Amino acid sequence: MSILSTINSPADLRKLEVDQLPELCTEIREFLIDNLSQNPGHFASSMGAVDLIVALHYVYDTPSDHLVWDVGHQAYAHKILTGRREAFKTQRTLNGISGFPNPLESDADTFIAGHAGNSISAALGMAIADHSTPGHENRKTVAVIGDASISGGLAFEGLNNASNHPNNLLIVLNDNDMSIDDNVGALHTYLSNLTTSAGYNRWRNKMAVYLRKKGVLTEPRKRAIIRFGNSVKSLVSKKQNIFEGLNIRYFGPIDGNDVIRLVKVFREIKDMEGPRLLHICTTKGKGFAPAEADPTTWHAPGKFNPQTGERKCAPSTPLPPLWQEVFGKTLVEIARRDDSVVGVTAAMPTGTSLCHFMKEFPERSFDVGISEGHAVTFAGGLAVGGKHPFVAIYSSFLQRAYDNIVHDVAIQGLPVTFCIDRAGVVGEDGVTHHGLFDLAYLNCIPGMIISSPADEQTLRNLMFTSLSANAPFAIRYPRGKALSTEWETPFEAIPVGKGRCVVNAGNPCIVILTIGPALHDAVKASEILNSEGIPTAVYDMIWLKPMDEDIIKEIAATEAHIITIEDGVVTGGLGTSVNDALRKMGASNGITMLGVPDKWIAQGSVNELKNICGYDYDGILRTARDLAIKNGK
Amino acid sequence: MSILSTINSPADLRKLEVDQLPELCTEIREFLIDNLSQNPGHFASSMGAVDLIVALHYVYDTPSDHLVWDVGHQAYAHKILTGRREAFKTQRTLNGISGFPNPLESDADTFIAGHAGNSISAALGMAIADHSTPGHENRKTVAVIGDASISGGLAFEGLNNASNHPNNLLIVLNDNDMSIDDNVGALHTYLSNLTTSAGYNRWRNKMAVYLRKKGVLTEPRKRAIIRFGNSVKSLVSKKQNIFEGLNIRYFGPIDGNDVIRLVKVFREIKDMEGPRLLHICTTKGKGFAPAEADPTTWHAPGKFNPQTGERKCAPSTPLPPLWQEVFGKTLVEIARRDDSVVGVTAAMPTGTSLCHFMKEFPERSFDVGISEGHAVTFAGGLAVGGKHPFVAIYSSFLQRAYDNIVHDVAIQGLPVTFCIDRAGVVGEDGVTHHGLFDLAYLNCIPGMIISSPADEQTLRNLMFTSLSANAPFAIRYPRGKALSTEWETPFEAIPVGKGRCVVNAGNPCIVILTIGPALHDAVKASEILNSEGIPTAVYDMIWLKPMDEDIIKEIAATEAHIITIEDGVVTGGLGTSVNDALRKMGASNGITMLGVPDKWIAQGSVNELKNICGYDYDGILRTARDLAIKNGK
Repeated sequence: MSILSTINSPADLRKLEVDQLPELCTEIREFLIDNLSQNPGHFASSMGAVDLIVALHYVYDTPSDHLVWDVGHQAYAHKILTGRREAFKTQRTLNGISGFPNPLESDADTFIAGHAGNSISAALGMAIADHSTPGHENRKTVAVIGDASISGGLAFEGLNNASNHPNNLLIVLNDNDMSIDDNVGALHTYLSNLTTSAGYNRWRNKMAVYLRKKGVLTEPRKRAIIRFGNSVKSLVSKKQNIFEGLNIRYFGPIDGNDVIRLVKVFREIKDMEGPRLLHICTTKGKGFAPAEADPTTWHAPGKFNPQTGERKCAPSTPLPPLWQEVFGKTLVEIARRDDSVVGVTAAMPTGTSLCHFMKEFPERSFDVGISEGHAVTFAGGLAVGGKHPFVAIYSSFLQRAYDNIVHDVAIQGLPVTFCIDRAGVVGEDGVTHHGLFDLAYLNCIPGMIISSPADEQTLRNLMFTSLSANAPFAIRYPRGKALSTEWETPFEAIPVGKGRCVVNAGNPCIVILTIGPALHDAVKASEILNSEGIPTAVYDMIWLKPMDEDIIKEIAATEAHIITIEDGVVTGGLGTSVNDALRKMGASNGITMLGVPDKWIAQGSVNELKNICGYDYDGILRTARDLAIKNGK
Repeated sequence: MSILSTINSPADLRKLEVDQLPELCTEIREFLIDNLSQNPGHFASSMGAVDLIVALHYVYDTPSDHLVWDVGHQAYAHKILTGRREAFKTQRTLNGISGFPNPLESDADTFIAGHAGNSISAALGMAIADHSTPGHENRKTVAVIGDASISGGLAFEGLNNASNHPNNLLIVLNDNDMSIDDNVGALHTYLSNLTTSAGYNRWRNKMAVYLRKKGVLTEPRKRAIIRFGNSVKSLVSKKQNIFEGLNIRYFGPIDGNDVIRLVKVFREIKDMEGPRLLHICTTKGKGFAPAEADPTTWHAPGKFNPQTGERKCAPSTPLPPLWQEVFGKTLVEIARRDDSVVGVTAAMPTGTSLCHFMKEFPERSFDVGISEGHAVTFAGGLAVGGKHPFVAIYSSFLQRAYDNIVHDVAIQGLPVTFCIDRAGVVGEDGVTHHGLFDLAYLNCIPGMIISSPADEQTLRNLMFTSLSANAPFAIRYPRGKALSTEWETPFEAIPVGKGRCVVNAGNPCIVILTIGPALHDAVKASEILNSEGIPTAVYDMIWLKPMDEDIIKEIAATEAHIITIEDGVVTGGLGTSVNDALRKMGASNGITMLGVPDKWIAQGSVNELKNICGYDYDGILRTARDLAIKNGK
């Protein structure tokens, strides 16, 4: 009988002897390999964090003590140890458990995770709250953050505020020397170079414990000692330490894949007061040789053979490309024609396929790390300097650069093209990763051009068109596969603000207006509807802003009922804008707005989620038929 | 004849002898005192930055070389020296010049400023663009950033990326030991303690120049030297240096109010390559004793006597309080009744009047510095820890925490009350400071409660109501004076999502729906309209979300034309939401949406701007009369 099968809660884990923990870690890794080879997920980082997770739950009194994960895709072992071992096979599926920590799922998940860099700020709030809440004073709070996440501005703001108010926050810096792609930024280089004197740390810890016991460690004295400690340490290590510069005691680095050592260190530092940071080094993919050798590929490898590590690759028949590939390859073509084109991303070169551009034009490529705000403001600076930046960021992450879009690009009307990947429901990554708000949050910004292509050619042509638009220009497209293998067509400029009629129906009873690839479901549905005697026209609006008011005027002159379809929240998006335009014209056509309703959407396949929201092919057909019946057709 | 009167461009300035510069600085200060005592503006920081600005324009070939300001309220001397001396008397007024740098106003203003911390990212983009643009390789770029701004996440992201690509960016850290309010955060303490060995810096500079001359300073060698230099310096100074940890060469600190010394240092470091930071220390209010003594009051002191420094204070008759005061004092009352209440702001304790709360409840107060993102995520953590945070941030700055609201508060449905100050047009601060987008960008977030009070009592009651709403709760209110001196009324819970009829008109021809204090102009207009035989009803909607659909249903049953009024962009706000609700009911009432149109709005008084946008009393009256004529009443 395995150890893992006896662990149904962290309390069970804490009944083990320390020397059983390495075996448990091995079993968890086997469990992960078995499961993730069949039901894909985030592999390499999860394998690397097993020992850390076991040690944390072993030393800390979870879930009473609070663990806060950052991004959280590395926290599978945490899910497995906190009552979700059996449910784990459902992870990332509809009605299953989430691929990320989520407080709605388990008390052990104390805070939402998904967007990088929030753990320090959130855990600091929790630790400070506990400090002043009767009965909670002894609760411990631990934030775990990766070396990529910690380079973001939010994490820095958290670090900068960590020492302002009394708290016992422990920050574990899980340094695996790599985010999804290669890590960038000076802080990364800094971490790689960082070494400290373990002997000095031991001496200082003993000193602190001794002084606290003797009751001489008052608050002003403690600060003086920390300052003194920093100077001594700086002298000893002949290195600077950014964290101690920010008044956070620094420990490490230690081997984060040595569970016994981790338990020892956590026990040593658990009861210390004040914010402190433990720097641990882990190996991505630890325990599975192919993943250790190529962690980027094994970040989220899909299905694979658990024995050989052979990945279940795509069949050899040519498939339609991913949308992101169309973007990535098109940008290379555009850049060959126009020297001013530069590419910017925030730690997503592979995910956005900007990597193609980076390979051909390294000196025109800027991967700024997990720093979406900087990416956009920096792009504004590049634009002032005469470049035409293409900024490739996922829709849900672009939310982090909202003010940068408004203040640093749009007010000045700078020519920056925002290539917004993963727009719409993204499927398995779930609630934190769906890109549902971009249409709404961009629509209210004066001077923005906002578009979404229904097909690859239009994506290419929109990118091409943005070059001469001389304005902030957003192009949103979804995750996943595009439509056709024949997409590398010559560039053609598209008139800004002009949509197109795709299905003409003479005197339509129903007019479907779409933005983005939802067009194709609409066209398919219209064929059935027209064959059923429900005259249905379909327009590809292409542009949310400026909207094609000629199309609206044309429809306003009929009595057709309008169905709008968008892969995003309905509030503030296409349907709302069409409605405003209609009302301005005094038109009384009815509108049914299909899209994501005003509630949070969990994980599932993209098709399942669209179906639930009612804007897939079936939903469109059903909606249109119901309308036709209601209107007596 | 004064020196200043001969300076119509930076080129004129550069004709002066160095030893004339102190006299010029004195004249500029006199000019500022004369002007700002009559036409109020940002005083203390502008006085402190005079010498810096003179030295920069003297040494650098502006406007060909690029200066990038951060926030920019300190850059008045820059405006005066770059052709806007005469126009300066119009600053912050309608059709005058902006109080902040703005590229639309002058070539010398290379990038927008207003929101803190963007200068490093923007200037880095500009410097990197120049590096690879034929003819621009020798252009210099200088970013000026204050010690408060540099503590923000965006500035850190900029610093973290500064050394990734070749550039010659100079960052001037203007350390005046104070933002609007006292500065906070570990970085601030760090800066205060920082000293470096001037002798060592001199030695290293000479060494670098020598090595470059000899042609031995190749790129890999330079890096090695920098690393070596950092170690040596760390040893010499016995201090850590965060900037050098981030691969940015650090110089200083030097006296930033010594113009001759500044000129000397800028000349020394101007032609160095690679990113570097010059730390200067300046005195806020320099040259005007009352301001030096009390820089917080003199941040933006209003009108004053230029001889005595006596401020033209408010008359002694009791005035209605500022909206922010109602918030600040009410929070104290609420906190006395409920121990869980805590207050969070991001460097705006005085501006939001959170200072009252901070005084009475220091241990429940969190001013996190210019870190809006952290403020919100931290508040999420406090909420998980059982506290009820009231987060007081200006509307336009809350844009910087958009993803934090979505990801770290709203997905989890945490009970955080967002007290959104300066919502709507803010007047003299202009385009970067108007709070126009909050209704639109919050409206699309599931589960948000969004409200705006028309009067002080309602603000108090909304704050009180939020305590038991158990959901993210936004309350927006404008800059400036509220309505009545009798506002300290007992608390009363308001039903969430229920508006109220304020003017009943039986069978109205026109129904005005307002959110926020626009109600009062609407009521005033309705009195005239009703007396003119145009039956006009007025509703105070109070809630944007959830919207009171009963009111909409009531109106939908009539043939009344609806006028919506909101102090924000119309796109995505109240008008749009009312329109969506109407269409959902199949109602065909016409709607005219008053509010801020879809374009950027510059500075002017609040009343002037509302008048231009057409949603003040006159605009409402005119709109209603036109509608009545059109509809044949």
